[in-house]
Amino acid sequence: MQTRYIIAVFLSLWLHTVYALDPLPSWNEGANKKSIIEFVAAVTNKSNPQYVSPEDRIATFDNDGTLWLEQPMYTQVMFAISRVKTLAPQHPEWKTQKPFSDILSGNTKALANISHDDLEKIVAETHSGMSVEDFIKIVQDWLASARDPHYGRQYTQLIYQPMLEVMNYLRANDFKIYIVTGGGQDFVRAFAPQTYGVVTAQIIGTAMKTNYMFVGDQPKLIRQPQVLLYSNYSGKAEAIDLFIGKKPIIAFGNSDGDRQMLEWTQANKKAHLMLLVHHDDAKREYAYGPNSPVGRFSNSLMQEALKNHWRLISMKDDWKVIFPLDKK
Amino acid sequence: MQTRYIIAVFLSLWLHTVYALDPLPSWNEGANKKSIIEFVAAVTNKSNPQYVSPEDRIATFDNDGTLWLEQPMYTQVMFAISRVKTLAPQHPEWKTQKPFSDILSGNTKALANISHDDLEKIVAETHSGMSVEDFIKIVQDWLASARDPHYGRQYTQLIYQPMLEVMNYLRANDFKIYIVTGGGQDFVRAFAPQTYGVVTAQIIGTAMKTNYMFVGDQPKLIRQPQVLLYSNYSGKAEAIDLFIGKKPIIAFGNSDGDRQMLEWTQANKKAHLMLLVHHDDAKREYAYGPNSPVGRFSNSLMQEALKNHWRLISMKDDWKVIFPLDKK
Repeated sequence: MQTRYIIAVFLSLWLHTVYALDPLPSWNEGANKKSIIEFVAAVTNKSNPQYVSPEDRIATFDNDGTLWLEQPMYTQVMFAISRVKTLAPQHPEWKTQKPFSDILSGNTKALANISHDDLEKIVAETHSGMSVEDFIKIVQDWLASARDPHYGRQYTQLIYQPMLEVMNYLRANDFKIYIVTGGGQDFVRAFAPQTYGVVTAQIIGTAMKTNYMFVGDQPKLIRQPQVLLYSNYSGKAEAIDLFIGKKPIIAFGNSDGDRQMLEWTQANKKAHLMLLVHHDDAKREYAYGPNSPVGRFSNSLMQEALKNHWRLISMKDDWKVIFPLDKK
Repeated sequence: MQTRYIIAVFLSLWLHTVYALDPLPSWNEGANKKSIIEFVAAVTNKSNPQYVSPEDRIATFDNDGTLWLEQPMYTQVMFAISRVKTLAPQHPEWKTQKPFSDILSGNTKALANISHDDLEKIVAETHSGMSVEDFIKIVQDWLASARDPHYGRQYTQLIYQPMLEVMNYLRANDFKIYIVTGGGQDFVRAFAPQTYGVVTAQIIGTAMKTNYMFVGDQPKLIRQPQVLLYSNYSGKAEAIDLFIGKKPIIAFGNSDGDRQMLEWTQANKKAHLMLLVHHDDAKREYAYGPNSPVGRFSNSLMQEALKNHWRLISMKDDWKVIFPLDKK
């Protein structure tokens, strides 16, 4: 026990040295930054009534619009469109089949208003038939070469620096960081470990069914054109229980699909904090809300957020920089 | 870095003190104990070509027959039978409906040969309609009062002491311990955190669909009479990928349902070790194999195990004690 005590003292001294520095340097001083820091201070302080033991320090983050950009279109949809073009020579029938024909003819107006069912058709055709590991390689290759049309940068560079700092800060305080995305679980697993430092087991998303089979003498999991579980809206709370089995104590979202995740967090009997990133920065990023088909932040979500005192993070006012490359 | 170095030295000294002791005291000396200890030594030694970094040290354990007893009948089936009896007054129709009528009339011969479909009917009726947290409370209350018919002990006392030691040993060597059970995920989550020290997020099992809804002003997840995913046979490999996203490097099973989990582990390009508990101890526990409907260890599994050099753990020869209460 003596040695253990000495370790604890050294560890404690070392952590104090590290965190005497501002843990959220890209956040402007204000009520939101203060709320995060005070929450972390409270739940990690054993003599505080709000103390939460490390195994219950579950943090969940939405991905699209919360950790990285989602405008003018979700990155995974950009990927699916690119896949349709790549695979078109093997599918001559797509030339006359909607929604594939709209993609191949460049009918951007039709694509802007694409329905959920049509998106699902595209995903089913382009995201299945290969092994999980082959799919992840396809996504990684695409992410390495694709560029966002507005900034001309790789998508993995268009992540939010202030949110990276929140993830690091929580991690340093023994929180377990989960990504709970409405996007494809394997799509996000293809880049999030390297990009955010989150291991695959802590990346939860909409998942396709897979089938176990031998290809030659090696077992493979082959992706099927069938959704096993949706991780959006109510599906986020359901997936959190399925994968984690505990309610989060802190959750970050930005749109209607995150509502139930925040409600589920609010239902935690332990201390909890709910936050929504509000895209109100037309100059540095985008400003959008109830009328955006991508990342809709409806009026009813806003009402619920205000009623429940969920914190609204203003990109314009709270964040000094948006992307890591903007850091001085 | 200086402080970090000092911490590392102290930590290392402390671990050496702890593990100079035998990490597997309930195991007899022999090839199996040796294989586990040598494997752990190899994958944790940075200068060994078999070294595996901590984030890839994934260990998966089956539950029934691997971590606790499964004879004369799976514990969850005993629970389901008890639930049928408890709920019978609310279901007068069960008196004449098979398989419920067999349970209520005590037709043990029919129950011994119950079909998979009938079991599913019983589970659907007795494991759904309540919230996840209410279900977990029901299981915990049952486990607190129920006694195994043979030993007259609580089921949570009928866990295998040598396997507890393996879990602790791996944990101390920075392995992440997962339970991957064919049994119900929430059934196992009701006791495994306290019984084995494994957090809910690392307990994977056959899962029922849940529906998110408000009951009064509180959101609840209500269990539906519908299986979302099976975690047995091929479903174990599929679930490991869904929940973990990495192949295990060490896996323990005991029956046909674990075969694909061991194949999946064997397909790992990193160092790996596969082991099967063989129930060959009629005196202290049970001896069963290809002819047992519960925990079947078929001849074809045995052939595959021998061909692939999976290690066969003999309860009779390898284990000094079976249950924690047997320890001197």
